[in-house]
Amino acid sequence: MPDFSDGFRELVKVIRTAIIGGTGYTGAELLRLLVAHPDVEIVAVSSRSEAGKPLTGAFPNLKGYLDLDFSDPSDLLSAKPDLVFFATPHGVAQASMKEIASTGARVIDLSADFRIKDQQLWEEVYSQPHQSPEFIADAVYGLPEVNRSAIAGSNLVACPGCYPTSVQLAMIPLIEKGLIDPASIVAYSGSGVSGAGRNAKVPYLLTEASENFQAYGTAGHRHEPEIVQGLRAVQAETDTPAEVLFLPHLVPMIRGIHSTVVADLKDKSADIQSVFEARYVDEPFVEVLPLGSQPQTRYVRGTNLCQLAVHVRGDRVVVLSVEDNLTKGASGQAVQCMNIMYGLDEKTGLNMPAMLPG
Amino acid sequence: MPDFSDGFRELVKVIRTAIIGGTGYTGAELLRLLVAHPDVEIVAVSSRSEAGKPLTGAFPNLKGYLDLDFSDPSDLLSAKPDLVFFATPHGVAQASMKEIASTGARVIDLSADFRIKDQQLWEEVYSQPHQSPEFIADAVYGLPEVNRSAIAGSNLVACPGCYPTSVQLAMIPLIEKGLIDPASIVAYSGSGVSGAGRNAKVPYLLTEASENFQAYGTAGHRHEPEIVQGLRAVQAETDTPAEVLFLPHLVPMIRGIHSTVVADLKDKSADIQSVFEARYVDEPFVEVLPLGSQPQTRYVRGTNLCQLAVHVRGDRVVVLSVEDNLTKGASGQAVQCMNIMYGLDEKTGLNMPAMLPG
Amino acid sequence: MPDFSDGFRELVKVIRTAIIGGTGYTGAELLRLLVAHPDVEIVAVSSRSEAGKPLTGAFPNLKGYLDLDFSDPSDLLSAKPDLVFFATPHGVAQASMKEIASTGARVIDLSADFRIKDQQLWEEVYSQPHQSPEFIADAVYGLPEVNRSAIAGSNLVACPGCYPTSVQLAMIPLIEKGLIDPASIVAYSGSGVSGAGRNAKVPYLLTEASENFQAYGTAGHRHEPEIVQGLRAVQAETDTPAEVLFLPHLVPMIRGIHSTVVADLKDKSADIQSVFEARYVDEPFVEVLPLGSQPQTRYVRGTNLCQLAVHVRGDRVVVLSVEDNLTKGASGQAVQCMNIMYGLDEKTGLNMPAMLPG
Amino acid sequence: MPDFSDGFRELVKVIRTAIIGGTGYTGAELLRLLVAHPDVEIVAVSSRSEAGKPLTGAFPNLKGYLDLDFSDPSDLLSAKPDLVFFATPHGVAQASMKEIASTGARVIDLSADFRIKDQQLWEEVYSQPHQSPEFIADAVYGLPEVNRSAIAGSNLVACPGCYPTSVQLAMIPLIEKGLIDPASIVAYSGSGVSGAGRNAKVPYLLTEASENFQAYGTAGHRHEPEIVQGLRAVQAETDTPAEVLFLPHLVPMIRGIHSTVVADLKDKSADIQSVFEARYVDEPFVEVLPLGSQPQTRYVRGTNLCQLAVHVRGDRVVVLSVEDNLTKGASGQAVQCMNIMYGLDEKTGLNMPAMLPG
Repeated sequence: MPDFSDGFRELVKVIRTAIIGGTGYTGAELLRLLVAHPDVEIVAVSSRSEAGKPLTGAFPNLKGYLDLDFSDPSDLLSAKPDLVFFATPHGVAQASMKEIASTGARVIDLSADFRIKDQQLWEEVYSQPHQSPEFIADAVYGLPEVNRSAIAGSNLVACPGCYPTSVQLAMIPLIEKGLIDPASIVAYSGSGVSGAGRNAKVPYLLTEASENFQAYGTAGHRHEPEIVQGLRAVQAETDTPAEVLFLPHLVPMIRGIHSTVVADLKDKSADIQSVFEARYVDEPFVEVLPLGSQPQTRYVRGTNLCQLAVHVRGDRVVVLSVEDNLTKGASGQAVQCMNIMYGLDEKTGLNMPAMLPG
Repeated sequence: MPDFSDGFRELVKVIRTAIIGGTGYTGAELLRLLVAHPDVEIVAVSSRSEAGKPLTGAFPNLKGYLDLDFSDPSDLLSAKPDLVFFATPHGVAQASMKEIASTGARVIDLSADFRIKDQQLWEEVYSQPHQSPEFIADAVYGLPEVNRSAIAGSNLVACPGCYPTSVQLAMIPLIEKGLIDPASIVAYSGSGVSGAGRNAKVPYLLTEASENFQAYGTAGHRHEPEIVQGLRAVQAETDTPAEVLFLPHLVPMIRGIHSTVVADLKDKSADIQSVFEARYVDEPFVEVLPLGSQPQTRYVRGTNLCQLAVHVRGDRVVVLSVEDNLTKGASGQAVQCMNIMYGLDEKTGLNMPAMLPG
Repeated sequence: MPDFSDGFRELVKVIRTAIIGGTGYTGAELLRLLVAHPDVEIVAVSSRSEAGKPLTGAFPNLKGYLDLDFSDPSDLLSAKPDLVFFATPHGVAQASMKEIASTGARVIDLSADFRIKDQQLWEEVYSQPHQSPEFIADAVYGLPEVNRSAIAGSNLVACPGCYPTSVQLAMIPLIEKGLIDPASIVAYSGSGVSGAGRNAKVPYLLTEASENFQAYGTAGHRHEPEIVQGLRAVQAETDTPAEVLFLPHLVPMIRGIHSTVVADLKDKSADIQSVFEARYVDEPFVEVLPLGSQPQTRYVRGTNLCQLAVHVRGDRVVVLSVEDNLTKGASGQAVQCMNIMYGLDEKTGLNMPAMLPG
Repeated sequence: MPDFSDGFRELVKVIRTAIIGGTGYTGAELLRLLVAHPDVEIVAVSSRSEAGKPLTGAFPNLKGYLDLDFSDPSDLLSAKPDLVFFATPHGVAQASMKEIASTGARVIDLSADFRIKDQQLWEEVYSQPHQSPEFIADAVYGLPEVNRSAIAGSNLVACPGCYPTSVQLAMIPLIEKGLIDPASIVAYSGSGVSGAGRNAKVPYLLTEASENFQAYGTAGHRHEPEIVQGLRAVQAETDTPAEVLFLPHLVPMIRGIHSTVVADLKDKSADIQSVFEARYVDEPFVEVLPLGSQPQTRYVRGTNLCQLAVHVRGDRVVVLSVEDNLTKGASGQAVQCMNIMYGLDEKTGLNMPAMLPG
């Protein structure tokens, strides 16, 4: 029986939240988590294409949990949200930041708009000019395992990408301690098809994507510079700058990311396992499995957990990392950030085991 | 924001529950639900093969939620449970009923042992003598939509099979009102592979069961007499006894049951949709979709919901029925029964939306 | 070792074939079969959207087997085909029939354009006026098991739909012999997702269609009148006209159709199994399994075989029927018809076992 | 229209083949290929557990293609085969080699028994003493792209493992030319579940292995020393000995292997693409895709093709390699070796395109 000590809960102001772009998979996952969150009231969900229609049309699973119509993006602020989530493609959040900030609402952006600190790099990677560069500096990269206190005080949290969360959590303990050659990192990742979004494209049809396995983006993927930035942020200044060869793959399943990250060890005698255990001992959503384990995506499906396992092979370390790309890789992490921003127990609304089988 | 008014909760005695046979899929699902149930303490989980080993070996998803070792079945009662769940193959619960009943513990049996009221029929269907016939008469068939008050007062609830739940809920409104020819029912059902249990058998390997669709048990399935008994129990005495041609199929997915049930209408002018809506208006876990809908198993995946949709085609009615075979079809329904038995809100621990996608 | 007695092959004129609409799944399957067919030369494959581009762009699997660019539909006849296949949505073949017929080329239409003999019914079902009604009467319905000799002499063969092939082969022996009540037929079918074509639509994404099972078209599906027409065509004139309640379902797999067809027996003492065996004894692509068998779609995957199994349950007969929806349900049957039209061994190019596993 | 010039075929002596251990997946795939092979007669298929039963019980897909009962292994040689295939777990072929060799029959072993040249290494890797070490030296490693002429003259061909085929073909052109640091190779591979064989084990149930992705064997896999041996065999003697960090993963699909192999380039200016194209220009079953391509396992499914694509990323080369683990990775390669051994066209019986979709 879980201990729900509700003593302080009544003191918490209910958070009036709005979601922009609620019809995609990160929006769907965010809604699933927020309707069960005891401190949140969902006051508006916008969708340009679905405005005026009930949410339960797009999300029959929410029937009985959320009785709301999609609003037009232009009407969203009339609901006076305390907090706005962007679950949109990149480019949308930047265009609206000024207006939202002027209302005093805080923002959690699940898109890539404010993740990259170097504006020019962002513009290269995303092939468009940035529309709100003045917000970049103050945006906090929403990886609680690195930026918890900054997240707590932030008005604009830029949630990490799904792959970057997976790969950074696998490498951060090694990079922080200077245990590997930072230029040697190769990250092989596989993601379920939901990573491609709720977009009707032929390659993601069941008939094309099931019974198939392939690499994609091998020539260079947008998440690579984000991973590099995240690792460099935790390096010692004197260390060689981190470089990552990031190799994503498409796995014939709905949800889940598994990363197999390889790096050259500087010191074979280091007790890598203990370094990982110490680094994450207080983290509610990172679990270090026993040395030599083989994590599986299904055991974290639908949860906010990232499981890590360390293998040492000769002069190299291999770190295996699993998460649900839509939960810890997106919307669950966004809720975790929200909990931090509002001083709630970090596990609120995120405390459920994965289904097995399932 | 859900309303968790906890005012009376402290008055509820925590239910000390034990699970016999916790290593299969219904056991796994029961554990997933019970670890999150606010009024339950899990005091013992037995497994002959895993006794002494931590539960998290078989169920890595429960790590952090349940710190317990499997106990030997013979030690289970020393934990002094108030309530014992059997998540075992048929034959096991009957063998232990006497001993458990003598301790005063109440029992919810997820197996087939006490579902059939006609002992001789049970012995024919399951090809073995019944070992505790003296408990059959008092056992209550655990379909809340029919037997809610009897469940509340029962010490032995026999939870319905997965298919029988799906088919009965589809036909009960019609049978009760005498709107169909009770001898005309054909129930075409498809179940995910978890219905076959966590048993290592070649036909259920991914390599054999995926990219495949087939009927099975076409010559006669054990759930057919259970469905017939359930429908006859709600018929008018003067009506022709119900007969069901039950046709199960194996669907290449993990979870879910979809039944397509056809019957001959006695009166084409009856407002079938209204009959369904009225019958289930107060049911927390049966949802009647708008006339002509097409329910999908994914929208009830992992939930305790059964969704129904009615179609009238000429002289026939077609009722579509979806549920999760492990939740409303097994362990969720068992928890629903427990909530009823202990006077709790029937939705306690069962109030979460399905994941989408997923 | 198969016996390839090639004695007469050299006398067979190579068939110059063209395919209109080669980019969908029936086109893809047709190409797979035709590139391996010893008597066929593919002279043109048209696609409005891909004209001028190599076929291997859309079909990387054909590299090394067919070195051809897609042509514009308007150029197709310049390749002087003897035989034109339409692998197009309905409406396309009708618009071009006159022009093609004027060249003397024969036509095998895989679409629905010429399947229905009643022009008005066709127009109702497909919600558009028929553009070439003058060809309807002479079009031969391409089910070899019924119309073999008419197919041989035809210049326009209308290949049956995937579901209609499956259901008709299951019922023809019973209907022909008057063994069932022709108004009592209920056909439950499940199809893999390729039945929906190579169309980018959200419901057919892996993320939406896998781990899901549902009925669709329950209110009435276009294949129902085609099935009825086919069964009525083989009835005794004095018999009650056949009626079929057709209930299709979407199965989370790529290929395959399984039909479970139920009907009321007129005479329970009839030896149904022998009737089936006798009816299909000489059919190269229909296999009657032993009484009470459970056919599986995987054993006919990628083959032109339809497997049938008979069950008698009380007063009802249940016939199980499996086929590959793209092969016997579409392109394989088209090749079978071609073989018949050109006097070839009917199995030419269609003589390969299914993969196992696979 | 393929050119089947049969002029010389009648001169080829039909090959009387026997298969030992025909009930697993490599046996199944071998049978699928051999029943369609014009120069082969299958004279015996043995299975200890199925002896005396028809093959079509285990393989319903072969009905109509092979009318044979399984024989007991001890009776197999009475069928007087010219050629014996072992499709058995390791340890079986070694135990029978002496007896078979004494009959003059040639052997193609699909198991690991004779792949490793270093007996002691074999015994370490497979944890058992080798039972026929006297055959190791003369056994030819059956990778036609390296050992074509030796295979032609061999009486004992040891077919490569599935992963080793995939990884070696990706690295051989680079290793032969000395273009990479041979100690820098990391091979990240994913295999369909059929790689685990037709064994009833819980982790390979659809309910456990679908909707899941994981690494396995990360601590060291038996195929790693085989890959290393194969690469060292084609190195210049003066080069650093090749080392491979091999990282296999289990992909939720039936068939297919995708390898992503990374190595440090010695010379960034080398035209890697041309090296690959030149190396494999005459190979019937290796296709080098255009630079920067993303091969997919589905395009080689059921075929004997290995497709390769080269990417250069900074100082590293990334080679992507796809094959069907049961065809080019096992039984197809065995048939290719047989064709070479008997002087047949190497593509005989292996010349069919993949299904799409499928």
